[in-house]
Amino acid sequence: MGYFVDINSDLGEGFGMYTMADDEKLLKEISSANIACGFHAGDPRIMNLTVQNAIENNVGIGAHPSFPDLNGFGRRDMNLTPLEIETDVLYQLGALNAFVKKFNTSLQHISPHGKLGNMAVKNSQYAEAIIKAVKEFDSNLIIMTEPGELANIAQYYGLKVAIQMFADRAYNDDGTLVSRNEINSVIIDSDEVVNRCLQMVLENKVKTINNTYIDVNGHTLCIHGDTANSIELVMKIKKALTKNGIVIKKLKEWL
Amino acid sequence: MGYFVDINSDLGEGFGMYTMADDEKLLKEISSANIACGFHAGDPRIMNLTVQNAIENNVGIGAHPSFPDLNGFGRRDMNLTPLEIETDVLYQLGALNAFVKKFNTSLQHISPHGKLGNMAVKNSQYAEAIIKAVKEFDSNLIIMTEPGELANIAQYYGLKVAIQMFADRAYNDDGTLVSRNEINSVIIDSDEVVNRCLQMVLENKVKTINNTYIDVNGHTLCIHGDTANSIELVMKIKKALTKNGIVIKKLKEWL
Amino acid sequence: MGYFVDINSDLGEGFGMYTMADDEKLLKEISSANIACGFHAGDPRIMNLTVQNAIENNVGIGAHPSFPDLNGFGRRDMNLTPLEIETDVLYQLGALNAFVKKFNTSLQHISPHGKLGNMAVKNSQYAEAIIKAVKEFDSNLIIMTEPGELANIAQYYGLKVAIQMFADRAYNDDGTLVSRNEINSVIIDSDEVVNRCLQMVLENKVKTINNTYIDVNGHTLCIHGDTANSIELVMKIKKALTKNGIVIKKLKEWL
Amino acid sequence: MGYFVDINSDLGEGFGMYTMADDEKLLKEISSANIACGFHAGDPRIMNLTVQNAIENNVGIGAHPSFPDLNGFGRRDMNLTPLEIETDVLYQLGALNAFVKKFNTSLQHISPHGKLGNMAVKNSQYAEAIIKAVKEFDSNLIIMTEPGELANIAQYYGLKVAIQMFADRAYNDDGTLVSRNEINSVIIDSDEVVNRCLQMVLENKVKTINNTYIDVNGHTLCIHGDTANSIELVMKIKKALTKNGIVIKKLKEWL
Repeated sequence: MGYFVDINSDLGEGFGMYTMADDEKLLKEISSANIACGFHAGDPRIMNLTVQNAIENNVGIGAHPSFPDLNGFGRRDMNLTPLEIETDVLYQLGALNAFVKKFNTSLQHISPHGKLGNMAVKNSQYAEAIIKAVKEFDSNLIIMTEPGELANIAQYYGLKVAIQMFADRAYNDDGTLVSRNEINSVIIDSDEVVNRCLQMVLENKVKTINNTYIDVNGHTLCIHGDTANSIELVMKIKKALTKNGIVIKKLKEWL
Repeated sequence: MGYFVDINSDLGEGFGMYTMADDEKLLKEISSANIACGFHAGDPRIMNLTVQNAIENNVGIGAHPSFPDLNGFGRRDMNLTPLEIETDVLYQLGALNAFVKKFNTSLQHISPHGKLGNMAVKNSQYAEAIIKAVKEFDSNLIIMTEPGELANIAQYYGLKVAIQMFADRAYNDDGTLVSRNEINSVIIDSDEVVNRCLQMVLENKVKTINNTYIDVNGHTLCIHGDTANSIELVMKIKKALTKNGIVIKKLKEWL
Repeated sequence: MGYFVDINSDLGEGFGMYTMADDEKLLKEISSANIACGFHAGDPRIMNLTVQNAIENNVGIGAHPSFPDLNGFGRRDMNLTPLEIETDVLYQLGALNAFVKKFNTSLQHISPHGKLGNMAVKNSQYAEAIIKAVKEFDSNLIIMTEPGELANIAQYYGLKVAIQMFADRAYNDDGTLVSRNEINSVIIDSDEVVNRCLQMVLENKVKTINNTYIDVNGHTLCIHGDTANSIELVMKIKKALTKNGIVIKKLKEWL
Repeated sequence: MGYFVDINSDLGEGFGMYTMADDEKLLKEISSANIACGFHAGDPRIMNLTVQNAIENNVGIGAHPSFPDLNGFGRRDMNLTPLEIETDVLYQLGALNAFVKKFNTSLQHISPHGKLGNMAVKNSQYAEAIIKAVKEFDSNLIIMTEPGELANIAQYYGLKVAIQMFADRAYNDDGTLVSRNEINSVIIDSDEVVNRCLQMVLENKVKTINNTYIDVNGHTLCIHGDTANSIELVMKIKKALTKNGIVIKKLKEWL
């Protein structure tokens, strides 16, 4: 008997000539990929290639829909109506799904990107609209998110939820992430990151920025691919988890 | 026993605040709709509404993919690679399909828009790329097009083809349409349009701009919704066809 | 001796194949035009044509910059940094100015569009950023706006301000407009609209939705061109104003 | 007595979060910059920063307008009308000029980007349309291009022309560049690149891919900033040129 955990990264976030992370290397290490759908990043060629590479590496494929804001990379707040959220998410789910259908497989999950993801944790209207789109499109999609409104509403409707844990980010006492604008929001030391991952996965707790411990009941570790040493870091994390009897596996095989 | 014919229009070609044709009225008269997918026109709200209205009127739903050219309404030639054509079409098929899935139904056909459609008739590389996308996405989609490369390649691969006939456009002797830049390219007189429709559907022939007759073996009459009297015209055409024993029916019910 | 007033409309708000108001007719009636710059509406062809037509009709030309939101027509709130506002406004000022330079003339004013305009009235950061762009581009530009932060900051920096009065919109007691979401926000009766215009221009006051009177010290009457009878309405307003000794003149000739 | 030559690079070709070349380092070495205007790359923040950095480094600023094709980086052919070319170029000239005006300076030149630049060399309609925009905007702008239609038409209208020489690209016997699709189209060896630059600048000739010599009468050496060693290469070229008595100076100081 053993424990499972998923490791996810945002992928396919280039655009045209532009590249973002080293997707090819990341795909060899992670078990689930959140793939950009063209609204904050990604285009049909990049989606096509990223889906193909994910399938070749047996990585679970998730849609990473965003506010329609290519120039702001989906990181700027927009005040949209529930209908706008619902239909923008439907459009993006469908667009990515075409590339998944091409390989006779199906989407594993959805993980809202950037500010849309942040808002869905706090704003129940946004969360409802996303869940509405998911139910209209495919009720088997796993909702990948942090604890909050989106997770609550997904569970209310009987959808599967995968809670994200952040390997390299500091937590507040209430379980939210310390804002990137504050110092010490990102944990640099790779040994500390590995230890936090072990503690989150094995003991279901994490030390906050105030040095207290809070509960963490997560299913998937989020690794940011756009930092210099992200590949080494994920390899280190995987080695430590495996040594402790944890099996890294994509969500749909165990959740 | 009787003959069937389909009547199609381009729909959902507004964008944001902008509207194009009177979609609601047209949907009451036609049997198949070519719905814009966001590349030359259309957006997630318009796609959502147009699909819903098409279903309520029992109209067959087709994707109307385009070159990525919102400002040029997809009417400007672009020199794209086969991979760009294939993946742009896949993206648009998937995006529209999400709204169709929402209503538990499926796409009936694909009808490439504007300059992409024109090029696919003449350019075998473009035609091959479109057919590749269709086979990857759903081999049951009917290919709606004029006679030419796209129809030929679709038939070669065993896909169903619906040949378009143009109610209000003049034909050259080789079966191509007289360019819109030339005078007499559009037939204004509604009685003449009706008579041409009858002749194309009942006798499988049409009088060309040079007053000779050529064969026309079409399955679907294309009605342009952006002209002032298009609703009256389609009602007149339907009345004449019905009086002559022709049944207007969406393609997937008889092709 | 006489009083001057300006009459302004938003123009050039089509995009590609799409049209919005009847710009040609409006240009014969108004004295200043707020021309879309491509971010919420407008494109280089429409800007070129609208500028040319404005010049031929001796209409003062203003930039009508927006949030970057073509699909939402600039009516959705976006949370942008001051640098984003400043540089987006600079870009749009410059783009429109190229078409004005072509005719050897210069921009008369700037009137922020839609949600950017609304926010600039309330949010001093947004207002500061817009004024920064104006000072960097051309300190002679008149700032056309409602009373609020943008007007205050413009005056603080010594820029000329033209206060807008709304012919067909109901006012709250604090001088703000009644939200379009509420009933009675738009005044339909054309005689009432004309009377309100006379009262605002001649007596510097307006009756609010609560039937009290408030002061209005405006320089320019805003006419919405996207309503059915806008041309007739503006002609009626002009006739009434002229009969009362008011001269309609573009801002830069008298402000 | 001495010779002058200009060294130019394409700059500001990032978009939002995406970066392209190492603009800051390049700006310390070159004398003229072709700055993207938002149609194939660049956005208001990047334009603002790149213009500021160019001015701080005393680098001549040129507009680098493109076809409207962000996803294709302006490298895909589009079939536009002369009016579309003219107005798209005017829009981009104006947009970039706003950031130049901010620093109380003016544009030095225009250098059409990618496929627009290629087409303007061969297609007189495209070349005419670009020149029309330049004359409407500012007849003092220098036209930076290869020999061909754009240069010819510019000279016909009395505009200044700066002919580009390509440091690292192989030439055909007719003076055109060897297509990037062919082997040996790019010269890798940095010593050879330096020698070719010297020969082009000092002797006004270059060895073609067929080992014959052709005349080259250029004013500006184009350095591509997106290759790994571009900074080292330009430093080497400058050192060699300087040692041979050539002064590197931006165009408007000597052309």
